[in-house]
Amino acid sequence: MLDAVSDAAWLESMLRVEAALAKVEGRLGLIPPEAAASIASSLLAAELDPEQIGREAVSAGNPVIPMVRMLSRVVPGEAVGYVHWGATSQDILDTGMMLVARRALTLITRDTDAVAAAAADLAVRHRSSVMVGRTLLQQAAPTTFGLKAAGWLTAVREARSRIREIQQGGLALQFGGAAGTLAALGERGLDVSRELARELGLVEPVLPWHTARGRVLALATALGILTAAVGKIALDVLLMAQNEVAEVSEGAGGGSSTLPQKQNPVAAVEVLACVRGVNAQVALLMAAALQEHERAAGGWQAEWPAISELFRFSAGAMGRTAGMLEGLQVNRERMTANLLQGGGQVMSEGVMMRLAARIGRPRAHHLVGEAAAAAVNSGREFGAELKADPEISAQLSPAEIDAALEPGSYLGSAEALVDRAVTAYQMEMAEGK
Amino acid sequence: MLDAVSDAAWLESMLRVEAALAKVEGRLGLIPPEAAASIASSLLAAELDPEQIGREAVSAGNPVIPMVRMLSRVVPGEAVGYVHWGATSQDILDTGMMLVARRALTLITRDTDAVAAAAADLAVRHRSSVMVGRTLLQQAAPTTFGLKAAGWLTAVREARSRIREIQQGGLALQFGGAAGTLAALGERGLDVSRELARELGLVEPVLPWHTARGRVLALATALGILTAAVGKIALDVLLMAQNEVAEVSEGAGGGSSTLPQKQNPVAAVEVLACVRGVNAQVALLMAAALQEHERAAGGWQAEWPAISELFRFSAGAMGRTAGMLEGLQVNRERMTANLLQGGGQVMSEGVMMRLAARIGRPRAHHLVGEAAAAAVNSGREFGAELKADPEISAQLSPAEIDAALEPGSYLGSAEALVDRAVTAYQMEMAEGK
Amino acid sequence: MLDAVSDAAWLESMLRVEAALAKVEGRLGLIPPEAAASIASSLLAAELDPEQIGREAVSAGNPVIPMVRMLSRVVPGEAVGYVHWGATSQDILDTGMMLVARRALTLITRDTDAVAAAAADLAVRHRSSVMVGRTLLQQAAPTTFGLKAAGWLTAVREARSRIREIQQGGLALQFGGAAGTLAALGERGLDVSRELARELGLVEPVLPWHTARGRVLALATALGILTAAVGKIALDVLLMAQNEVAEVSEGAGGGSSTLPQKQNPVAAVEVLACVRGVNAQVALLMAAALQEHERAAGGWQAEWPAISELFRFSAGAMGRTAGMLEGLQVNRERMTANLLQGGGQVMSEGVMMRLAARIGRPRAHHLVGEAAAAAVNSGREFGAELKADPEISAQLSPAEIDAALEPGSYLGSAEALVDRAVTAYQMEMAEGK
Amino acid sequence: MLDAVSDAAWLESMLRVEAALAKVEGRLGLIPPEAAASIASSLLAAELDPEQIGREAVSAGNPVIPMVRMLSRVVPGEAVGYVHWGATSQDILDTGMMLVARRALTLITRDTDAVAAAAADLAVRHRSSVMVGRTLLQQAAPTTFGLKAAGWLTAVREARSRIREIQQGGLALQFGGAAGTLAALGERGLDVSRELARELGLVEPVLPWHTARGRVLALATALGILTAAVGKIALDVLLMAQNEVAEVSEGAGGGSSTLPQKQNPVAAVEVLACVRGVNAQVALLMAAALQEHERAAGGWQAEWPAISELFRFSAGAMGRTAGMLEGLQVNRERMTANLLQGGGQVMSEGVMMRLAARIGRPRAHHLVGEAAAAAVNSGREFGAELKADPEISAQLSPAEIDAALEPGSYLGSAEALVDRAVTAYQMEMAEGK
Repeated sequence: MLDAVSDAAWLESMLRVEAALAKVEGRLGLIPPEAAASIASSLLAAELDPEQIGREAVSAGNPVIPMVRMLSRVVPGEAVGYVHWGATSQDILDTGMMLVARRALTLITRDTDAVAAAAADLAVRHRSSVMVGRTLLQQAAPTTFGLKAAGWLTAVREARSRIREIQQGGLALQFGGAAGTLAALGERGLDVSRELARELGLVEPVLPWHTARGRVLALATALGILTAAVGKIALDVLLMAQNEVAEVSEGAGGGSSTLPQKQNPVAAVEVLACVRGVNAQVALLMAAALQEHERAAGGWQAEWPAISELFRFSAGAMGRTAGMLEGLQVNRERMTANLLQGGGQVMSEGVMMRLAARIGRPRAHHLVGEAAAAAVNSGREFGAELKADPEISAQLSPAEIDAALEPGSYLGSAEALVDRAVTAYQMEMAEGK
Repeated sequence: MLDAVSDAAWLESMLRVEAALAKVEGRLGLIPPEAAASIASSLLAAELDPEQIGREAVSAGNPVIPMVRMLSRVVPGEAVGYVHWGATSQDILDTGMMLVARRALTLITRDTDAVAAAAADLAVRHRSSVMVGRTLLQQAAPTTFGLKAAGWLTAVREARSRIREIQQGGLALQFGGAAGTLAALGERGLDVSRELARELGLVEPVLPWHTARGRVLALATALGILTAAVGKIALDVLLMAQNEVAEVSEGAGGGSSTLPQKQNPVAAVEVLACVRGVNAQVALLMAAALQEHERAAGGWQAEWPAISELFRFSAGAMGRTAGMLEGLQVNRERMTANLLQGGGQVMSEGVMMRLAARIGRPRAHHLVGEAAAAAVNSGREFGAELKADPEISAQLSPAEIDAALEPGSYLGSAEALVDRAVTAYQMEMAEGK
Repeated sequence: MLDAVSDAAWLESMLRVEAALAKVEGRLGLIPPEAAASIASSLLAAELDPEQIGREAVSAGNPVIPMVRMLSRVVPGEAVGYVHWGATSQDILDTGMMLVARRALTLITRDTDAVAAAAADLAVRHRSSVMVGRTLLQQAAPTTFGLKAAGWLTAVREARSRIREIQQGGLALQFGGAAGTLAALGERGLDVSRELARELGLVEPVLPWHTARGRVLALATALGILTAAVGKIALDVLLMAQNEVAEVSEGAGGGSSTLPQKQNPVAAVEVLACVRGVNAQVALLMAAALQEHERAAGGWQAEWPAISELFRFSAGAMGRTAGMLEGLQVNRERMTANLLQGGGQVMSEGVMMRLAARIGRPRAHHLVGEAAAAAVNSGREFGAELKADPEISAQLSPAEIDAALEPGSYLGSAEALVDRAVTAYQMEMAEGK
Repeated sequence: MLDAVSDAAWLESMLRVEAALAKVEGRLGLIPPEAAASIASSLLAAELDPEQIGREAVSAGNPVIPMVRMLSRVVPGEAVGYVHWGATSQDILDTGMMLVARRALTLITRDTDAVAAAAADLAVRHRSSVMVGRTLLQQAAPTTFGLKAAGWLTAVREARSRIREIQQGGLALQFGGAAGTLAALGERGLDVSRELARELGLVEPVLPWHTARGRVLALATALGILTAAVGKIALDVLLMAQNEVAEVSEGAGGGSSTLPQKQNPVAAVEVLACVRGVNAQVALLMAAALQEHERAAGGWQAEWPAISELFRFSAGAMGRTAGMLEGLQVNRERMTANLLQGGGQVMSEGVMMRLAARIGRPRAHHLVGEAAAAAVNSGREFGAELKADPEISAQLSPAEIDAALEPGSYLGSAEALVDRAVTAYQMEMAEGK
């Protein structure tokens, strides 16, 4: 990924755009065909120095100006006079960005697919692995690890569909010329636009979008939503990997410079760091989208480093999550042990609902809550407290209470939900989506 | 809009959810039908005090807990025991939020349609109103005001399609019970879920999404992209309304507390303020989307005020933009005057392209640039400088130079682009999208 | 706090500014003394409707314009002609904001002091309460709960000093008139400025700061840093309150709408939600600080709701943290139990350092790491594995190993650091800072 | 600046910290003096490969771990066993960051001083250069360009004082060992801490601050406030440089890839782009400051790239602003022309205040407002409309009206304020602040 969004990759993409432009204009008879051919071949072979362009971009205001200037050394003879014909810097930069985005999204979706596959695998394998469900970081009621993984899968799958839409219809040509009118091409502007989009495999937009940055925002926010989904996975892994919880661990934990025993959940940690980086770029791009008139003074220029960082952090988040899930060690014993830890209190809703069917929800909620508090205070078993309560025991026999305290008896639709999530995933895969 | 997202509106929506839940559970035989009927009718008529609930929500951790508690005063007899049957607080709050969102989006899209209509009208009326195109806040080359308005239209139209998708398939039921397994409903959880979604007119999701906040982010970012589009309109209006530019003015400008002559572009200013507010909520929601386990500890709770503010600022931005565009005063004389101000320098690309066809782009760029600089230094007309240059006058006759300096002669595809944008808009309208 | 930053509170503050202005101008002979007296007394008694002003502010562009207009109904006779003499709307709004800030900061620092006192108390009481120190959410090495609390204390104490600086010298008069020149007051502008600052108890700035928002940012970021400090406390409490950790609990936990046994750490959760709200306002204010010319078009207007929210969320964060710490239940048994849970692995650095003194750090790090891994794999005690290693046992006797595994033996400077932190706090308190 | 915050610079700083640690520990007798000497000299000469460390940091979780590992190749003999003695990775990274910050701040303050000097020079030279003051981007009332520059100066000067405080007391040693207790150093932890701070020229904090990130936030927000101040300058320059305003231009404007005549205000544009970059990093760092327990899992790791970007963008903003102001071309003729453009309407407050002294402010505001509107509608001169109004002409003679319409007559305290701002600046310079 670092290569795909490096300065060299941007430069190469921009040269491809200039080459395609010449090719199309030659084909349409707007510039001499031999000049077009000469430009196209020499640009694709050109080896310009990204650092020099970077330095000169500071005084020029953008990197296209020095790049075009340098091409006089690369394109032979009179052909150089037909380079950049009818284009403006932003046409080249924005279209180049779309080519960079295409390549970056290919890499990102590959890792996204790996994340989804690994999550689906965990969902299936642990469909019935009972564990504690936790709300507000407190034990709440039983669930299965499969349902947790199915939640990860579904969030990633839904976020992925947005990325696919962008890959299929959101990567658009930018081509408008100096003021967005294509005036330098006379009557032929829209012909060039149509052919150039086709040549580059990009969508032709209704209008040039020099200062209409919805496309950039759609891309950025789709990545924001995707990485938020894996950030949640990393957060869950991190919390489950705590020594006191110990329900999962990363296969290959990181060490410590001073603590010999440490197995740090470094993948989860790095995913979380990357997600923060993505968030920052999304916020920057959204704030930068208020762009003046026909070309922005600051907002557009702020996009360049942000877009590269956006891809870099997104790829980091997806790649690290994929590895983390593929190597995840799941400790079912600890899942069970944690479930039983509170003496069955995690089953209190189950007990309450049985009672509620007979004495109403409010009273049942109250009585079971009192028994739970009593168990904490007395140190006695929750089951014992339930049985000791005369109002409860008038409704539920000891056997019924014991049955109600069995975690596996209170999973509701957990397994059906896992199946639903996995089926939705498999259908998408079958459809080649 | 203030009403649609007030605390009272949230409360009413949550009561509607509880009422619908009881109704569905009664129909499915999970609770007594007469209790269901009693709950449904008394909840829809209930008048609870949002402020009291707000106060009690602080110690409870969310407003559903005190709301459910208060219902014991509202629901008669034993029926109260069947309120909230099988649900968790977040089911009620998130689903209630979706109902709030539905109403808010209806209001927002109404104003969005008005913005689009006003922009389309300006695009058509000013299709050929020649004006200066500006890049980096400098005069660049001619365009038409119609094309500028077509750009506004297209950005809003494209952003609107995202909102429509959400209205049609993005507003989903939340229903998972305490740990997302619907365990309290035994085998019947998915039946209730399906029927409840139908009852409320919401989409039934594959899984409960208590800690998968992609839906919330899709909504927030769609509004972020929509309001960024109108923020750009407001910025353009603000800049064109400067006294020194004076190409447009708001029909009803704001006054000043001390300056008698002031006609402030207050609508544009307020739109820009609202857009900043939207951006802040989007960033907050994105950061808050990393949610722990089965229910978040902080991230979810941070959403509540942010969602209300998101709608409030979005509605403010759209409503003010609609009014601003509908009343916009356009000053064509000033557009022409500004175009001529630089002695024709704004036409320099046109002159260059004519020259470039004969002597190549680099040389032509250089010569025309020198003539432009000479005009600034000498104070002479740009046309005179062009004619005085021997290399230029060897290629272009004085009449050709004069023709090249005519702004209306250098609009390229501007009008064709306006037509394209307006046609795309009209087709969408015809399709009732 | 809700009252301190309500619309009514803003309005009252702005009326106080207008009253003080009249008073000062009367004293300086710029307006008739009887008019000044009449204005001052009627403004302080005025009961204007904040909602009406809010509505009219939309078309006016700011609330000062309708407020001044309404004063004609409140100020009797000719005196009304001298209201707002020489001021501009922003003078009144910004200065009013400073008065709102002063009151809000008083409330916030009161809660901040309570947080510091509670943290200091915990630091002292638990100076030697040994517990696990955790890095990357993994058990690392022993520390004391007192040192953790001392860390909370120190962060809050240092952040508080910034707030104090602002209370003492950062709340400044805004007074510049229409264009920041005080031209409407002729030669007397600076006299009025000086006296008005004195009258209101605010700092007189070197220049009006209509579009120099450093003061607003200093205030916002100081609150951002302060609330980040308590956000960290809330996060630690939340993590320690997990059932599987159970080292602390909130005295008065929140319930659940469906789970009878739940004792949710609602204070911690709400603090974390508030901190996100603060962060969003800080980011908005920083982005909004790029303000045009002599009065901003959007950036300033975006500040108003953000400032109120900033105070509201900050006060929420501080108040809830104070209550949380004051009622915190500390479970020393669980601290000890968690420390011993890994069979002494949390002591591995201590063992390594003893070894390192004899065989060098790299070799010692390697050997102890292997023993730790062996213990995990074999299920044997860490101490047994250490003793079983020939290279280790060649250097350390069994008794030395046992001693090295005693958590209390490896606290280093923990207690000295607690003392340092508490002393620094007590000295500040003694100095009345 | 790029060099000062490059990966190599971070690495060099971290090696300096390890070297200083060895030196101090040798001096205190904690490690053999000859080992200390050997470590110190070999580390300062070490040439490690930042790219390799970067790659290995991914699986290790931080760059210190591979760095320390590589030192075994660099440090001869047994000395390597005493490298990193008693430290944890974060001690080295955070302290190294402080050394990076110190160097970066030196460069940034150099440019900040240049900005202040250039602004002060403009303030002095244009103390009385009358120009239009603008509010909400509308002409409001006269001011002087000197006062505008004095505003720039004052904002930068005040922001600079925060940076100075950090340079003087905000760059602190991080030294706590694995869990912040310095346990690996037994009783001598605080001795090492004190001496290490002295050795590196850093402040010794009361406590280690591994998860108390107030220092990082203070640094980041100070740079945020500083760059917001120059962002405002850039925005003003950009707006004044519009062709239709033309009051200033950048000495060396940027060209265009297609428009020969373009002189783009590229410095202003780049400053604005940099400021957005700074804002994004500040927001990220503030969100990342909620750090868990004794070492964060994600928040700390997110800081590393953000800090480098923060310095890079800050340096870019300051450096480009300095150059922009030093080369700024000021066009006094255009300032005068713009002032007169509205036929004197910019003087309406002056006319109103003269009238107000006789007939009260509200009536005067109304009459002058009507005359202004009449002038716009009739196309007649504002002065003529004023004189034609019977109520006005009953109070003011034609000569008085003419005098009131003279812009230079209505500057109020503008020049006195310039003097105040320049004096404050000069006093600070004289005190060597």
